[in-house]
Amino acid sequence: MAVSLDMAQDKLLKTVQPLAAEEVALADCWRRVLAGEIVADTDFPPFDRSPLDGYALIAADVAEASPQQPVVLEVVDDIPAGNVPRVAVRPGTAAKIMTGAPVPEGATGVVRREDVREEEGRATVFAGAGVDNNLCRRGEEIAAGEKVITAGTVVNAGVMGLLALLGVARPRVYKQPRVALLATGSEVADIEAPLKPGAIRNSNSYMLAAQVRDAGAEPVLFGIARDEIAAIITRLSDAADCDLIVTTGGVSAGDYDLVADVYREMGIDVLFDRVGIKPGMPVLAGLKAGKLYIGLSGNPAAASVAFEQIVRPVLLKMGGRREWWRPRAKALLTAPFTKPSGATRFVWAACRPVNGGLTVEPLPLQGNGMLKSAVTANAMIVIPAGSPPLAAGSVVEVCLLADL
Amino acid sequence: MAVSLDMAQDKLLKTVQPLAAEEVALADCWRRVLAGEIVADTDFPPFDRSPLDGYALIAADVAEASPQQPVVLEVVDDIPAGNVPRVAVRPGTAAKIMTGAPVPEGATGVVRREDVREEEGRATVFAGAGVDNNLCRRGEEIAAGEKVITAGTVVNAGVMGLLALLGVARPRVYKQPRVALLATGSEVADIEAPLKPGAIRNSNSYMLAAQVRDAGAEPVLFGIARDEIAAIITRLSDAADCDLIVTTGGVSAGDYDLVADVYREMGIDVLFDRVGIKPGMPVLAGLKAGKLYIGLSGNPAAASVAFEQIVRPVLLKMGGRREWWRPRAKALLTAPFTKPSGATRFVWAACRPVNGGLTVEPLPLQGNGMLKSAVTANAMIVIPAGSPPLAAGSVVEVCLLADL
Repeated sequence: MAVSLDMAQDKLLKTVQPLAAEEVALADCWRRVLAGEIVADTDFPPFDRSPLDGYALIAADVAEASPQQPVVLEVVDDIPAGNVPRVAVRPGTAAKIMTGAPVPEGATGVVRREDVREEEGRATVFAGAGVDNNLCRRGEEIAAGEKVITAGTVVNAGVMGLLALLGVARPRVYKQPRVALLATGSEVADIEAPLKPGAIRNSNSYMLAAQVRDAGAEPVLFGIARDEIAAIITRLSDAADCDLIVTTGGVSAGDYDLVADVYREMGIDVLFDRVGIKPGMPVLAGLKAGKLYIGLSGNPAAASVAFEQIVRPVLLKMGGRREWWRPRAKALLTAPFTKPSGATRFVWAACRPVNGGLTVEPLPLQGNGMLKSAVTANAMIVIPAGSPPLAAGSVVEVCLLADL
Repeated sequence: MAVSLDMAQDKLLKTVQPLAAEEVALADCWRRVLAGEIVADTDFPPFDRSPLDGYALIAADVAEASPQQPVVLEVVDDIPAGNVPRVAVRPGTAAKIMTGAPVPEGATGVVRREDVREEEGRATVFAGAGVDNNLCRRGEEIAAGEKVITAGTVVNAGVMGLLALLGVARPRVYKQPRVALLATGSEVADIEAPLKPGAIRNSNSYMLAAQVRDAGAEPVLFGIARDEIAAIITRLSDAADCDLIVTTGGVSAGDYDLVADVYREMGIDVLFDRVGIKPGMPVLAGLKAGKLYIGLSGNPAAASVAFEQIVRPVLLKMGGRREWWRPRAKALLTAPFTKPSGATRFVWAACRPVNGGLTVEPLPLQGNGMLKSAVTANAMIVIPAGSPPLAAGSVVEVCLLADL
């Protein structure tokens, strides 16, 4: 059954749910996805603290202080960072305090060290401090009970720092989907072996492995199976503990029956067998016992685009992300694109920010040789089915794949 | 010595070179940086091949073939993918051929299977094939000797596929810089331990660990050192085999002397001690025996911005990248930004593509509490020193940190 791209995405996304959660040491959580909401269990700062080196005092005492009219206070404490104040500050007294140290009871402001001269237990203060000046109040950044990060958030540097700040040393993150990658085709050869006549090397498994990683999942390479039903079934049965099974080859018009026969023999129900996109039309999607099997074309351009558009959203959902779609933007075509298409066409492209907008350059070699284009591509132009030839300067939609 | 941002970047970049190369299994090369140019050692395709299932024949034989005037040819061979042709095709003959199989000698075109009926060794051809129709010529995508990927390229999915195609099973990639991260401060506590009074948790090391990974480098966490010269020196000597040493804390106005004293004691030459950016001004950069030591502020906002602007380019150069700078773009401010600044200011922001352009929203809490903003930020607004207050709708420069 042939389906539209929307329908293919919809059918597959319906079959999967986020995986279970696991606890992972915070230092290893970069790019992982939080499985639960993070609620602060304490205030931050956890105490009133000084943001600089200076003297904690009662603001009213020094309201009028100036170089001409300094105020002299008795120094009653010295509070290095990491220590706690020993005495409260009362009128006429001050406590020397270092950056990050707790402000003593009674103090209502901090004057920076540069504006004070300390001699023999007395601080001569040459500048005033308003109430709460230079004083970070307990909980002013984060209040205990505050929901600080939502479930489904990808751990970036800010999240990592915030989790550390809150003492979440082993956050619960979604397990990363393990994706079995199996190349089929009697002409496909291992990349380590010398190339025999009539053979080509297995580029699809490696290309897709990178796409799997980019989707926050873990590729598991199952090598190559010859064009024989039994060989493919044997390899697939080894992949039983993976969360998603992706094959390449054996699904295009001619040899279509091969992977379809495998599905039939294994009792995998076919969800659809082609999708209205170019390249990438042959996609044999199947389901057995809740597990998805996806057969992609053996052509790298077709496999790569179908993976991007159809498999990636599934992996993002399984991986617990809230957003399953690449960002899209409008951009100005820098060169004409005239190839007609009966299906939605995806064209590898280079997108660049220029003068407050974006330009996009379609890259050459969109056939089998797409790998050369994909080296420099950071976007795909999305050309709707039935579009007329597009002149340079046309506004097109782009799907952003990587940094601009 | 205080320096401008440009000068700080310049001074640091001058001191480092790309690290040595190592061979890494291709499957593990995602995001690594190629250390040498990749030159194809064979043609691709490695032989003339058929892109579909059909019949290889002499195009002139079937030039006039149509459903009304089919042409009958003798089938002399059957070439599955992965096999080699046994006989040449001569006038009046054809060879059955599968997708990806080598086209036999003599054949000048391929007619797809759907346009042929084969019975008892004879193929009745109902459609013509022009010369070279459905025939991928040896080397038409990549010619032996062609320079296909330049040194310094980051391995994305396309590069990974292309390396596999060319049989580069263990590419030479630059070693990833190992970055020692040491938090200093007697108030700074390990994230695993219960929080004592007067203490705050070490968020900087984790935040920076993520920034280090994002720069393609490897963080090595050296924990926390108390505010004592000897304690810091002990920890730093453990980090001797790292390629770059980053400390946080001990460099701001008040306790500045601490890390400076450490540098003096260790014989590290100071390159500069503050940079004209906000936040992030306190940066104590030093050099000893060709190794860089960088002391950042203990304030997360300052440490994060200074890392982004000053340390990241250094890591990208050490890691062998050709491009050391984040992409920059112009964007429309969605809210006013009125804070004055005597130095170039970086403001965490959310940048989004809208109607062919970009908008950018400055995020709240730019002080210590920046970690909350950094959770959702994907950009930093760059506000030049001395800028007037900026109204909503102003065009500003943004530095893009992550996907739009």
